[in-house]
Amino acid sequence: MDKSEFDLIDSYFSPLSNGYEEAYALKNDAALISEQPNKSTVVTMDTLIAGVHFFISDPAEDIARKCLRVNLSDLAAMGADARAYTLSIAYNDDLDSQWVKSFTSGLASDQQRFSIHLIGGDTVKTSGPLTITVTCFGAVPRHQCHRRNTAQPDQDIWVSGTLGDAAAGLKILNCEMNFENSELRQDLITRYRLPRPRMELGNRLLEQKISNTAMDVSDGLLADLTHITSSSKVGAVLYEEDLPFSKAFNALMVENKDLKTELAVTGGDDYELLFTANHQSREEIANLSNSLSLKLSRIGAIVEGEGISLLRKNGDTFSITRTGWKHF
Amino acid sequence: MDKSEFDLIDSYFSPLSNGYEEAYALKNDAALISEQPNKSTVVTMDTLIAGVHFFISDPAEDIARKCLRVNLSDLAAMGADARAYTLSIAYNDDLDSQWVKSFTSGLASDQQRFSIHLIGGDTVKTSGPLTITVTCFGAVPRHQCHRRNTAQPDQDIWVSGTLGDAAAGLKILNCEMNFENSELRQDLITRYRLPRPRMELGNRLLEQKISNTAMDVSDGLLADLTHITSSSKVGAVLYEEDLPFSKAFNALMVENKDLKTELAVTGGDDYELLFTANHQSREEIANLSNSLSLKLSRIGAIVEGEGISLLRKNGDTFSITRTGWKHF
Repeated sequence: MDKSEFDLIDSYFSPLSNGYEEAYALKNDAALISEQPNKSTVVTMDTLIAGVHFFISDPAEDIARKCLRVNLSDLAAMGADARAYTLSIAYNDDLDSQWVKSFTSGLASDQQRFSIHLIGGDTVKTSGPLTITVTCFGAVPRHQCHRRNTAQPDQDIWVSGTLGDAAAGLKILNCEMNFENSELRQDLITRYRLPRPRMELGNRLLEQKISNTAMDVSDGLLADLTHITSSSKVGAVLYEEDLPFSKAFNALMVENKDLKTELAVTGGDDYELLFTANHQSREEIANLSNSLSLKLSRIGAIVEGEGISLLRKNGDTFSITRTGWKHF
Repeated sequence: MDKSEFDLIDSYFSPLSNGYEEAYALKNDAALISEQPNKSTVVTMDTLIAGVHFFISDPAEDIARKCLRVNLSDLAAMGADARAYTLSIAYNDDLDSQWVKSFTSGLASDQQRFSIHLIGGDTVKTSGPLTITVTCFGAVPRHQCHRRNTAQPDQDIWVSGTLGDAAAGLKILNCEMNFENSELRQDLITRYRLPRPRMELGNRLLEQKISNTAMDVSDGLLADLTHITSSSKVGAVLYEEDLPFSKAFNALMVENKDLKTELAVTGGDDYELLFTANHQSREEIANLSNSLSLKLSRIGAIVEGEGISLLRKNGDTFSITRTGWKHF
């Protein structure tokens, strides 16, 4: 990197604050967030590290977008509208201006897609791997958001989209699995590289009061559902046959049924929304699914007690060897 | 580190959110900030890296407090009341539970001192140096804060406290300077390790409308004043004889007059407030200084034109070899 921090900020990052007056073109000590009346600001923060959360060889645009989207997915889980973000980059000598240019163009593209602005941050030099931290800000009606400790026995458990795709994409990138079909192969890799935060779904779930218990699936369905069950002091039953899979995942796993289920419930990086709702909401959820053109699957039920069982069609309980993908 | 992320958060970090209900004990996807009416939220973010911004051998309590305080200093510059923060730690194998315990006790101590709470964050594993990012939140009257681009010719330039101490402390720690007096030596090292964010000063400057141009001195007086002059499209004159020094700094530099000035204006890490004000405010500023028991020194003037001159007592212009300490 041949440019000083100030040059770097000026030429590549400042334009990303255009249109957000109280970011002061990133030239102030701090930025302001001035909420509308009767709103609360939602804050989430995630750090992504080269070699852990993405490959340094991934396209810089995709790295940028992944860093934003894992945070946006947290906002979606809360039911928030996305608004702004701050960004800290700890970079090493490997980075050049071309990389920064591509990275910021990835940010710009997702800023437009999700109606957010860069409002501040930091750039520092590190001897370690590229380390990117995003703090993301959204807005919800004052004091309202989804929680994790509000699930009730007899509620349905729902999940958006499909499970296991990103984990399979990672296995392909790590050469742990092979997939001849290049188009479907790319679908799975893209699911790993580019989460699709379910902003509109989270928003509608909160607005329509369909659910007050929701979170995003980032560490794996079982690990994340455990956060809900343990903080709500309930148990859960999941039905293997109702887990939603993509065409690509089905094709890749056609001869690996057990691994398929294991990857789907422990794989992580899905960035789908997991939520609970009362039986009476089933029709409303079906309508919501239609109106968003987004698959919403009823995959289980909250029960009294504790722990999570995964039931097979024949009534057996599936045994899971790991409870979730942890980053370390 | 023998604990998983969740255990780590539970045992050491969750208690730091006590008393801030909408942090949900750090168990939600995100936290809420619900401002009072007619307030704006101020956001600032800084990343500190072992070996760059602190020594890994520094006491963990001090590292924690420095990470908070460099951010709080930005809030002070904006004139904000501090409120909450999120924290991301990328740690490597060198860290043990004892370190985390000390680190969180440093956070707890400064939380109490500055009336702030931990409301969220992330912990990740890295192969690189310990990397800590804090995003800090404060409150100002709606849409009001100090700026950098509002300085006017003929205004006085003021700075709080004393300059050069932290830079001298760093030189001592790096064995570039020697200081026999162990008490004064420790004073300077402490200034490097523990910034003293000028929260109350920043707050009063905004509230009393004494100044609308302020920032904190983190990169060195000259570099930071340059941010003000260039964005305000003005120049500045600084008077060498009016630069404020501590007893320790005076003693260390007694035979190094040129280095003394150079370190004071380019050394960085002072975390004092730099602000401009009209002549009419001199008495009010003197009163403020008394009421806060904090030295406030008039060190120069904003002038028409551009650039910064540092005038010696004999009328010569001091020549500065660097324009500020940049972290890379």
